[in-house]
Amino acid sequence: MLIKGENYRSAWFDEDKNSLFIINQTKLPFEFEIVELKNFEEIIVAIKEMWVRGAPLLGAVAGYGMYFAFQDALPQNEPEKFVRKLADIIRNTRPTAVDLFHSVDRMLEILDSDISFEEKVKKARLIADTIYHDTLHMCWKIGVNGLEVIEEIAETKKENEPINILTHCNAGWLATIDYGTVTAPLYLATKNNIPIHIWVDETRPRNQGALLTTFELREQGIPFTLIADNTGGLLMQKGKVDLILVGADRISSKGDVANKIGTYLKALAAYDNHVPFYVAAPTSSFDLSVKDALNEIVLEEREPEEVIFTTGLYNGKPVRVQICPDGCQAFNAGFDITPAKYITGIITDKGVVNPNEKEISKLFKG
Amino acid sequence: MLIKGENYRSAWFDEDKNSLFIINQTKLPFEFEIVELKNFEEIIVAIKEMWVRGAPLLGAVAGYGMYFAFQDALPQNEPEKFVRKLADIIRNTRPTAVDLFHSVDRMLEILDSDISFEEKVKKARLIADTIYHDTLHMCWKIGVNGLEVIEEIAETKKENEPINILTHCNAGWLATIDYGTVTAPLYLATKNNIPIHIWVDETRPRNQGALLTTFELREQGIPFTLIADNTGGLLMQKGKVDLILVGADRISSKGDVANKIGTYLKALAAYDNHVPFYVAAPTSSFDLSVKDALNEIVLEEREPEEVIFTTGLYNGKPVRVQICPDGCQAFNAGFDITPAKYITGIITDKGVVNPNEKEISKLFKG
Repeated sequence: MLIKGENYRSAWFDEDKNSLFIINQTKLPFEFEIVELKNFEEIIVAIKEMWVRGAPLLGAVAGYGMYFAFQDALPQNEPEKFVRKLADIIRNTRPTAVDLFHSVDRMLEILDSDISFEEKVKKARLIADTIYHDTLHMCWKIGVNGLEVIEEIAETKKENEPINILTHCNAGWLATIDYGTVTAPLYLATKNNIPIHIWVDETRPRNQGALLTTFELREQGIPFTLIADNTGGLLMQKGKVDLILVGADRISSKGDVANKIGTYLKALAAYDNHVPFYVAAPTSSFDLSVKDALNEIVLEEREPEEVIFTTGLYNGKPVRVQICPDGCQAFNAGFDITPAKYITGIITDKGVVNPNEKEISKLFKG
Repeated sequence: MLIKGENYRSAWFDEDKNSLFIINQTKLPFEFEIVELKNFEEIIVAIKEMWVRGAPLLGAVAGYGMYFAFQDALPQNEPEKFVRKLADIIRNTRPTAVDLFHSVDRMLEILDSDISFEEKVKKARLIADTIYHDTLHMCWKIGVNGLEVIEEIAETKKENEPINILTHCNAGWLATIDYGTVTAPLYLATKNNIPIHIWVDETRPRNQGALLTTFELREQGIPFTLIADNTGGLLMQKGKVDLILVGADRISSKGDVANKIGTYLKALAAYDNHVPFYVAAPTSSFDLSVKDALNEIVLEEREPEEVIFTTGLYNGKPVRVQICPDGCQAFNAGFDITPAKYITGIITDKGVVNPNEKEISKLFKG
């Protein structure tokens, strides 16, 4: 998508340099920095420090991380053991994002094939590229399927009356490779001349809404309004939200959704005010092994400093400020669980499904 | 209550100087500034700029504002008309806080009495002082009544196991004259050796939780943990909240509560997770003329800048930073409505009531 009128993706592999290039998302929107990741260690840093974030992008980046792991393993005595060790390191970077686990597993399958380890390294590159291209295509399909949901709501509105869509966090193209999950339908709606207006949740404590979603929408020229996370309930009470569209980090077999902390509160308000609440996520976000989302999904707990400090522009440069007095303890949970009963539908690359076990299992048959 | 071990109130009238002294709450917790308000205009600035905030404190300060109005009216040709004009100015400062309206009305009743205008000015001082003392006593009684709610929950806990109480915004002593509404029961519980731990909602966009509630609790030595507003839902899902205690800016005849934006979302989560949700507020916060809270209460809309900028400490001094890219529109609503059906009880100075028309009307009989 566009940055200053030029087309970018959030990550791309450079053949000649054998490096993965990424946009450092912790610097956005105040600085635009492209980083070259040349090896396994640099991939780990990029994931841990959240230079890259968002479940689908993490999945793709983890693929290239594993490719580097295969490369590093080649000169080792026990290359397969070495790859598995590094796989565990990637797995431990961000415990909630299932796409990352899927990618690692898909890359580990290479070890089962009956070829030389040199061939396996080449295969690793091919599979990493495939994950990348699958992610791209998956977002496009979510866009097409989500467009139908928006078109349905458009039919209930007067001509030229914008559809008000609330979103939480950033499930935009920056969180994927391109198009985004939540944003893909928005970009397609705009392309199809359906007027939309986005309520952007700030998304404390890391402010991905205020920093990234606003940035994406501004660069794409889509009208939006930034709001505090506390505000969505009132907007729904006042009839100013037509649709809620959020992403997902992991979805249970029953349709319960782990997503950015605060999603659950918006779902409750949507339910209370009869506002359609949709999750946009690839089928890769489903984890059918999970029955009891609240107790089985490891919900990442992050550093208290992310609550105590916030980043903003001061005298034209980004600085980190302390938003509470000295001596404050803080608790920082990254995700909560939105029970399926509060979700209207899940927009996937394979179609829109009702959040229940039967419908979800159909996605994975044939 | 305590600041650096010394006892303070959030406002106090100085006889000799004929001035109201206040703590400038926009500077807290990073700077401790006492401001002298010498006349009507300075009172208006203090209210509008939120140097003073919180419904009960606003009520008390508005009383002294009206006293200054009476004083200024004395040399005028039509003093009564003059007083009424200034009363309207006070009324227009903060449209949601009913305590302020109550105070203004109580002060205007002086105009009906059959005494000289000079006498009326003296009476105005007496009534302003009375409002001040009534506010003090009201908080104490809320503390005593709220203590019973906490004691009941304490009985369900193991010995020395702290009661986890979540609060939103600042309904502390800084928002009243002393003790606070929400905090009065907390201070009394601590005094009575009931172990408590407070989850403090940051309370975007003005961060009254992160800035003021943390400050109050720290100075009083009560254990607390700061959280993003998004976090409370997960904590309730995980069984880590025993009680929610919030304030109120205005309560309808049916028990619907206008309070700081985001309160409604916490109430929904409390209801969904069977967590008791209590409102602590003086009987003066009730507005029996309001039947349909959502449509009848004017919910203050504030400057978008409060969403776009936030204040924090940088290199040891408080600065205002821009938390989103240039060119962001923002919407800033101060309050939402929590429907009575999600409220367990309202802790008032006259006892704890169920939030329904019948029980509430009893408060105002005899």
